[in-house]
Amino acid sequence: FLPSLSIMAEENLSVVLHAKGDLRIENRPIPEPGPNDVLLQMHSVGICGSDVHYWQHGRIGDFVLKKPMVLGHEAAGRVVKVGSAVTHLKPGNRVAIEPGVPRDMDEFFKRGQYNLSPTIFFCATPPDDGNLCRYYTHNANFCYKLPDNITFEEGALIEPLSVGIHACRRAGVTLGSTVLICGAGPIGLVSLIVAKAMGASKVIITDLFAERLAMAKELGADFQLTVKKEDGAQVLAKKVKEILGTQPQITIECTGVESCIQTALYATCSGGVVLLVGLGAEMTTVPLVNAAVREVDIRGVFRYCNTYPMAIAMLSSGKVNVKPLVTHRFPLEQAGQAFETTRQGLGIKVMLKCDKNDQNP
Amino acid sequence: FLPSLSIMAEENLSVVLHAKGDLRIENRPIPEPGPNDVLLQMHSVGICGSDVHYWQHGRIGDFVLKKPMVLGHEAAGRVVKVGSAVTHLKPGNRVAIEPGVPRDMDEFFKRGQYNLSPTIFFCATPPDDGNLCRYYTHNANFCYKLPDNITFEEGALIEPLSVGIHACRRAGVTLGSTVLICGAGPIGLVSLIVAKAMGASKVIITDLFAERLAMAKELGADFQLTVKKEDGAQVLAKKVKEILGTQPQITIECTGVESCIQTALYATCSGGVVLLVGLGAEMTTVPLVNAAVREVDIRGVFRYCNTYPMAIAMLSSGKVNVKPLVTHRFPLEQAGQAFETTRQGLGIKVMLKCDKNDQNP
Amino acid sequence: FLPSLSIMAEENLSVVLHAKGDLRIENRPIPEPGPNDVLLQMHSVGICGSDVHYWQHGRIGDFVLKKPMVLGHEAAGRVVKVGSAVTHLKPGNRVAIEPGVPRDMDEFFKRGQYNLSPTIFFCATPPDDGNLCRYYTHNANFCYKLPDNITFEEGALIEPLSVGIHACRRAGVTLGSTVLICGAGPIGLVSLIVAKAMGASKVIITDLFAERLAMAKELGADFQLTVKKEDGAQVLAKKVKEILGTQPQITIECTGVESCIQTALYATCSGGVVLLVGLGAEMTTVPLVNAAVREVDIRGVFRYCNTYPMAIAMLSSGKVNVKPLVTHRFPLEQAGQAFETTRQGLGIKVMLKCDKNDQNP
Amino acid sequence: FLPSLSIMAEENLSVVLHAKGDLRIENRPIPEPGPNDVLLQMHSVGICGSDVHYWQHGRIGDFVLKKPMVLGHEAAGRVVKVGSAVTHLKPGNRVAIEPGVPRDMDEFFKRGQYNLSPTIFFCATPPDDGNLCRYYTHNANFCYKLPDNITFEEGALIEPLSVGIHACRRAGVTLGSTVLICGAGPIGLVSLIVAKAMGASKVIITDLFAERLAMAKELGADFQLTVKKEDGAQVLAKKVKEILGTQPQITIECTGVESCIQTALYATCSGGVVLLVGLGAEMTTVPLVNAAVREVDIRGVFRYCNTYPMAIAMLSSGKVNVKPLVTHRFPLEQAGQAFETTRQGLGIKVMLKCDKNDQNP
Ligand SMILES: NC(=O)c1ccc[n+]([C@@H]2O[C@H](COP(=O)([O-])OP(=O)(O)OC[C@H]3O[C@@H](n4cnc5c(N)ncnc54)[C@H](O)[C@@H]3O)[C@@H](O)[C@H]2O)c1
Ligand SMILES: NC(=O)c1ccc[n+]([C@@H]2O[C@H](COP(=O)([O-])OP(=O)(O)OC[C@H]3O[C@@H](n4cnc5c(N)ncnc54)[C@H](O)[C@@H]3O)[C@@H](O)[C@H]2O)c1
Ligand SMILES: NC(=O)c1ccc[n+]([C@@H]2O[C@H](COP(=O)([O-])OP(=O)(O)OC[C@H]3O[C@@H](n4cnc5c(N)ncnc54)[C@H](O)[C@@H]3O)[C@@H](O)[C@H]2O)c1
Ligand SMILES: NC(=O)c1ccc[n+]([C@@H]2O[C@H](COP(=O)([O-])OP(=O)(O)OC[C@H]3O[C@@H](n4cnc5c(N)ncnc54)[C@H](O)[C@@H]3O)[C@@H](O)[C@H]2O)c1
Ligand SMILES: [Zn+2]
Ligand SMILES: [Zn+2]
Ligand SMILES: [Zn+2]
Ligand SMILES: [Zn+2]
Repeated sequence: FLPSLSIMAEENLSVVLHAKGDLRIENRPIPEPGPNDVLLQMHSVGICGSDVHYWQHGRIGDFVLKKPMVLGHEAAGRVVKVGSAVTHLKPGNRVAIEPGVPRDMDEFFKRGQYNLSPTIFFCATPPDDGNLCRYYTHNANFCYKLPDNITFEEGALIEPLSVGIHACRRAGVTLGSTVLICGAGPIGLVSLIVAKAMGASKVIITDLFAERLAMAKELGADFQLTVKKEDGAQVLAKKVKEILGTQPQITIECTGVESCIQTALYATCSGGVVLLVGLGAEMTTVPLVNAAVREVDIRGVFRYCNTYPMAIAMLSSGKVNVKPLVTHRFPLEQAGQAFETTRQGLGIKVMLKCDKNDQNP
Repeated sequence: FLPSLSIMAEENLSVVLHAKGDLRIENRPIPEPGPNDVLLQMHSVGICGSDVHYWQHGRIGDFVLKKPMVLGHEAAGRVVKVGSAVTHLKPGNRVAIEPGVPRDMDEFFKRGQYNLSPTIFFCATPPDDGNLCRYYTHNANFCYKLPDNITFEEGALIEPLSVGIHACRRAGVTLGSTVLICGAGPIGLVSLIVAKAMGASKVIITDLFAERLAMAKELGADFQLTVKKEDGAQVLAKKVKEILGTQPQITIECTGVESCIQTALYATCSGGVVLLVGLGAEMTTVPLVNAAVREVDIRGVFRYCNTYPMAIAMLSSGKVNVKPLVTHRFPLEQAGQAFETTRQGLGIKVMLKCDKNDQNP
Repeated sequence: FLPSLSIMAEENLSVVLHAKGDLRIENRPIPEPGPNDVLLQMHSVGICGSDVHYWQHGRIGDFVLKKPMVLGHEAAGRVVKVGSAVTHLKPGNRVAIEPGVPRDMDEFFKRGQYNLSPTIFFCATPPDDGNLCRYYTHNANFCYKLPDNITFEEGALIEPLSVGIHACRRAGVTLGSTVLICGAGPIGLVSLIVAKAMGASKVIITDLFAERLAMAKELGADFQLTVKKEDGAQVLAKKVKEILGTQPQITIECTGVESCIQTALYATCSGGVVLLVGLGAEMTTVPLVNAAVREVDIRGVFRYCNTYPMAIAMLSSGKVNVKPLVTHRFPLEQAGQAFETTRQGLGIKVMLKCDKNDQNP
Repeated sequence: FLPSLSIMAEENLSVVLHAKGDLRIENRPIPEPGPNDVLLQMHSVGICGSDVHYWQHGRIGDFVLKKPMVLGHEAAGRVVKVGSAVTHLKPGNRVAIEPGVPRDMDEFFKRGQYNLSPTIFFCATPPDDGNLCRYYTHNANFCYKLPDNITFEEGALIEPLSVGIHACRRAGVTLGSTVLICGAGPIGLVSLIVAKAMGASKVIITDLFAERLAMAKELGADFQLTVKKEDGAQVLAKKVKEILGTQPQITIECTGVESCIQTALYATCSGGVVLLVGLGAEMTTVPLVNAAVREVDIRGVFRYCNTYPMAIAMLSSGKVNVKPLVTHRFPLEQAGQAFETTRQGLGIKVMLKCDKNDQNP
């Protein structure tokens, strides 16, 4: 592999959010890797709901855009330069990029829960720049070599897949688990894929939209339930039990909608687990006593940690297949159209192709 | 030991709730033990908040009093007769009585979570009779022999202590844990005792009433915080952090009050656990996203299981001391006065002495 | 379903071990179910290595045959009569039979580890009779209804499958696990099937015989390694690492052979787990310090508990396929030939067909 | 606090092992802290069995002394200079020093098991220098501020205490645990202290020497058992059961002696855990099947990780008291005598006082 210098010198087209609603494609300098970093030529970057949310609202919760920020955090690329202290990567290596890099060796990091470290760097979370661009530097310890049988796009999809892995792992999905998943967006779908791969015997998934449930079926869901916004939580919980033949041991909530959280609590069997992945309103009204006296545990997830190696193992062994998730592709230059597609909820995952010379998956 | 037959024949004075507000002390026949049962001469029975609640309201949640029911479930007594199949107990044995006895060998029971079995028998939960009486039969497998150095009253206190054990165990209290306990009623106090015995380094406890906190201090609380009903949850969470010098890793909520649950969620550090012991309103409004994105797990407890042997081990070894919890004693005949004392929230634990010839602790 | 009385009255042909080497097929009375039992018309019973071992040696460890005993414990049949207290089963139900039934409600049983209860009943473990016969009674709580899409033979195979489930569960096999399995006998093969179903990304399996490894390949093994008895443990450990590209996180030892246990300890990566399923000599010489300082945990399994419902869930959902394990079938009357086949190590699993009118799988 | 420059310039007396048997006290240059380091003025350093072992044998297992190495790893000191990137410490801070510092951000480190990282730096493990000297630099992230109520010696004792914490944590010691500890050396004694603090109800401890058991009694052991080298493992296991009144749920092996490991396996109750702390011969002959079929798990420990904060919490709250462990003190200049004292097995812990101006505990 020989990255032509001319390419590198050229430019660093980047998708930059300047303010709420103000998304620009502009040139930025190509950064220089620090001693522990690698410089990456970006290949494929997926658009996440949060990217669109920053674009539309300029903030998510306490994270507020205050200065221009490059978007994008579901990414894979190719190493073009390595920092002086980097030994496990070399130019030419294809890598998946874990967007969260702990800055401080605090108690969370030492205990292996670096995702909870309050000072963590995270791509495209203000004020940290993302990697929706041509060239990008990242801590080499959080870049993972892709085997030849994993495409760049699969590498990029490891990011959302990681949310599903972390959720299913924290939920304790195992052999014979019965699972309810609320919401068949990208996150609900990766949770479905992972739950099946971890041995779930029956997964039922809900959504408002039939097309999303059709994709869920294709990806292995055993049952689909189309719901209406006005459906009562207890009624839905009962329906789930009827369809499944039993109450699910685990519910993975991937909508953030209050009534879905209520459904999750009512539906889950005693001694079970409700996993909160979806993020909704600050305050939520829920049947907490119902869950508590049935010892239904409620656990949240904040992104993920320690998922990339196992995700690569699963993809490489062919045990999970995330390729069907990519429904749209745009060259980096058409980022605006790509964002608009995601905003409208068309398809599942929109990929931006950052390498002018290689727009393959 | 020779229980005089005359005593046995005599009577079986029992505290029976006939309807909301209608508590009577009346004679009932002395029951005959089945093959797996023992007949017990009751010695000491503590009054629980739930006994008072049934008396005042005739129901707790879905459990509704429909026919007269003997109250009482925190109990210890002496074996006077054993069923034909019983081998591990004999007349004269002093025992603590675990009030919950699973009826069906269902999945919960087989997995060691018999407290979650939907068909479980539980003393003084409609329609199951309790043991606030002179003579009572119980499944011998759920009667635990007391060593000589444990009093009957300590034996009776194993019941509330078990709630504390189950809560602390599910919360994962361990060496060096920092713990917040909301509420210094009997349940908050046993949780405190257990948390310290499991190695908690610092425990802070809150209550509305200074006297309860004084008792908490005596029992080993490191910090006490007197709160007012109108205090804001976030403000309290901040205060807790200031006093403790850090956010607690574990919060054990023992009030059931909505604002306390909110405080619990805000106060607990990322990656920590909130244990819901207190039972409040059906629907609760809580900052669920705040907890979820910090991976603060929310776990309820329903009574307990597999606690009696370890409770006896702790009491016998002197590692925990529950004796100070008993603040009032009444002979069985004065049950009315005893219930009134508990209703008024005087003291901590009121004991009824069921053995006419032995009213010692 | 109407079991013809004439059939029932007829006979109860049973495979009875009278002494070491003295196996007889003889008629026994049809037993009467107790209140909690069901009477079963046996359909399919697999022969286990332990059945053959009792036949050949008259004992396994401390379990010594002292009086005639019916063999067989991998079994499925049809309910023909239910005891007075049985509610969840009725005549005609097809069931898998869990051979271990705890007799005492001791601490192990209460904690959900009933397999460790020292007084447990277990089919075909002296002095407890097994179910290689026409009619057999069993505790109804340990008979599990089979859905229509599970055959009797699959029901019988749940017994060895349960060993694999318990082993993989205790080993913590999960998404992306790399696994070494020593020995491709029936137990190694079910462990393989379960490990893959629980998300293992790569499984390597060893055996002395190429045919067994061929079956392993068919069942999903990623790598097979033919070994020789004299191969050194450290050399094999290194080979495993080379083939797998990494040290396995989990090793499931299914031979009981000392050198295999040594290989297991050397081969497993730091922080990993060695699961001892195989049972060998009383004393074993192993590199314990090597494992200890790398925090490689060593865990045994004793049969299993709480596996039947999840096994049925997995079989019914089609997630695991055990059918290829059955390589031979004999009618009950030809039990002698069937045992000889197993003794010679031909094929994998030999099934005895106990129902004269239905010899289907 | 103002460290006088003259003191700092002076000298850096260090205890250096040049070769097997060749221990020298010599001056070394005072090192300069790197950006993430602190320079420490050493105060108290305990002598460990491993220090003596390197002195006597020049190696431990695969760790072989090839060039002169400063000994010492149980240490506390005072910060005198901080590296440019250090923010949480400043000159004057009193700190305990965690001797193991991971060098690579590998999978072990990311998962919170940095003690298993193969490239970890560890004080006084060849070729890494220890801190038995006047001035020493260490990664600031592995220096923990001591509250005023913890002495330097207690700070130094956190190192061996950490082994006990890690062992008890991995063993799952909890409320009511019954524990057998083999060996009452420093490691057995800290395991005892920690087990009691985590809620163990009864601890029995064995040793060859009555004096060590006397210290164990003082530190809270419930039972002591003096053993002879020739005692049979099964006989001892039976004795332990008789004294304890039950088989221990957990055994912590702190001798490394083969017969003790055998005793540990026989003695521990079904479903229990044997923790291997002691390090003995490469190959060990043990009753592995006996343990396996009773599901007695065997777990090793390699040093510890994530123990310092909880150890400080426990010491500061007064829940554990390690002060009685220090039986001898010597000024740094008399290191030879100090090492000889440890070699002879006199007392429990020998402390070297490295600060000429402050030889207090
Ligand atoms: N906790 C984390 O670390 C984390 C990480 C990523 C995403 N998230 C959150 O996960 C959620 C899902 O993410 P996504 O990218 O899949 O979003 P998405 O909006 O694409 O998908 C949500 C899906 O839920 C469906 N839905 C809405 N209301 C519903 C209802 N009442 N019942 C059933 N389905 C309903 C929608 O139709 C949609 O298909 C979001 O809330 C996101 O913020 C959390
Ligand atoms: N989950 C279970 O299995 C289980 C078992 C037993 C009891 N409980 C529940 O546990 C709770 C406690 O039981 P108890 O017997 O100790 O009751 P209690 O009423 O005696 O004690 C509750 C304490 O909380 C205090 N309190 C009230 N509001 C407060 C506030 N805002 N902040 C701080 N403290 C406040 C009260 O002053 C009182 O001292 C009850 O809700 C009970 O129903 C649950
Ligand atoms: N712990 C339990 O609860 C439990 C339950 C069932 C079986 N078991 C034990 O599991 C073991 C396996 O049972 P099975 O029915 O599969 O027995 P099996 O004898 O059919 O299979 C053992 C396999 O190991 C192979 N083998 C022998 N030496 C080997 C070596 N050096 N390297 C690699 N492979 C080697 C054999 O060729 C054979 O295929 C037996 O020891 C049995 O006693 C234990
Ligand atoms: N795994 C680790 O990370 C780690 C860390 C530190 C120490 N260690 C090991 O822990 C062990 C103990 O360390 P220590 O510093 O306490 O050593 P030590 O030598 O001071 O103590 C060992 C004690 O065991 C006693 N003993 C010897 N044989 C016995 C027997 N048959 N029965 C009962 N007691 C017997 C001795 O009398 C002595 O008191 C050593 O093997 C050491 O290498 C391991
Ligand atoms: Zn995202
Ligand atoms: Zn109660
Ligand atoms: Zn078998
Ligand atoms: Zn040491």
